[in-house]
Amino acid sequence: MTPETFNLKTMGWLRADFKQKFGTPRQGALAKSSRAHVELAPEWKGRGILSGLEGFSHVWILSYLHLSVSKRQRGKIHPPRLKGGKVGILASRSPHRPNNIGLTLARVERCAGDELYVSEVDLVDGTPILDIKPYLALADRPEQYSCGWTDKVAITHRTCVFSEKADEDLRQLERSAKIREVPRVRALIEEMLTLDPRPPAYLGRADAQFAVWVAGLNVHFRFHEEKFTVTGVEPA
Amino acid sequence: MTPETFNLKTMGWLRADFKQKFGTPRQGALAKSSRAHVELAPEWKGRGILSGLEGFSHVWILSYLHLSVSKRQRGKIHPPRLKGGKVGILASRSPHRPNNIGLTLARVERCAGDELYVSEVDLVDGTPILDIKPYLALADRPEQYSCGWTDKVAITHRTCVFSEKADEDLRQLERSAKIREVPRVRALIEEMLTLDPRPPAYLGRADAQFAVWVAGLNVHFRFHEEKFTVTGVEPA
Repeated sequence: MTPETFNLKTMGWLRADFKQKFGTPRQGALAKSSRAHVELAPEWKGRGILSGLEGFSHVWILSYLHLSVSKRQRGKIHPPRLKGGKVGILASRSPHRPNNIGLTLARVERCAGDELYVSEVDLVDGTPILDIKPYLALADRPEQYSCGWTDKVAITHRTCVFSEKADEDLRQLERSAKIREVPRVRALIEEMLTLDPRPPAYLGRADAQFAVWVAGLNVHFRFHEEKFTVTGVEPA
Repeated sequence: MTPETFNLKTMGWLRADFKQKFGTPRQGALAKSSRAHVELAPEWKGRGILSGLEGFSHVWILSYLHLSVSKRQRGKIHPPRLKGGKVGILASRSPHRPNNIGLTLARVERCAGDELYVSEVDLVDGTPILDIKPYLALADRPEQYSCGWTDKVAITHRTCVFSEKADEDLRQLERSAKIREVPRVRALIEEMLTLDPRPPAYLGRADAQFAVWVAGLNVHFRFHEEKFTVTGVEPA
């Protein structure tokens, strides 16, 4: 008989642009402007485990979704884009899963020595990493494929605008050099809001206001008249 | 600080064509004739967790590679096709990894109720399953990609022939109805040998003989004059 329980140990942590589940994009491929850094656990440093990865365009990040741990283990879930419909958890990429393991295809931005920088990540800062594997077209890229119920329901994209104050806030942050990469962070905020980060309970509210930590900033925004408006941005 | 160790529990087991690491294809996509059945753990049965998966052509199987557990944790490994060259474990799909988690893209053959049948699997019978996720082109299929060192070294494909005795063994098994699907199993044996399953220590041997369990059969074969010959087949 094969074993039933396994003790796994994190081999690194992700340093990323998001700190809460709220706002974190549901798929990395939709957050082109996100950036993250893999910090190897001490026992894996200096041993060349990333050697050869620099030639790959993409890597699989297998992570432990530590913020999605809940005692109630559901068999089915409501994917946001099914608007009330249910599917089995194994037919979805919901983070609430039997073992809370996340699978993210991230783009390799830079890899040298023990340093791995990636983009297109859908994970929060501090996420424990269980494994990293190279993207192998031979194994991971079927010639023909179909994607079930997800082929039938498009993801809703929302309009996102920045208020004059929010843009002035960003300009001031850029002038004061308080945050680097203001254009990237602005694009990231836009990507996040375009994907509609509102929790289901807020979907019916006519004028809801939110704040979320993004890349070291507190970002204030509201949803009003079917669009998102960033109302202000300040260092967190 | 995020957690450092995790206790995971198998959510099912794979019933598959191979029982030993020896002979098991290194990538499922190369073993088109392999078949496997996912047996859900009792606590996940009858809860609809597979509901909606039937529309997907492919699934990711995240597994615990229980036969690859070793105390010595290497930083680099020798991939077979690099013929002596080394890469970091995270730049390879070697089963000897920090947490021994396997990632296999399998083809969905049939999914209904609690039953999931797949093909194109590179896992041994009894492998504990940690998670199953649908293949989502949106997230898992980059438009442009490169696959590093694997783009530069082709996989060696060997010639494989069946001796007259082996073919007679198979015909007899088919007549006696002792195994089902003889043509599929024959194709699977051929795929396995074409990929050269020999362990590194055997590569230099001029006339090595082997036996391996495949889909309920003991398959005897030899490597001689640069090709594999199946010399006999019997019920295991």
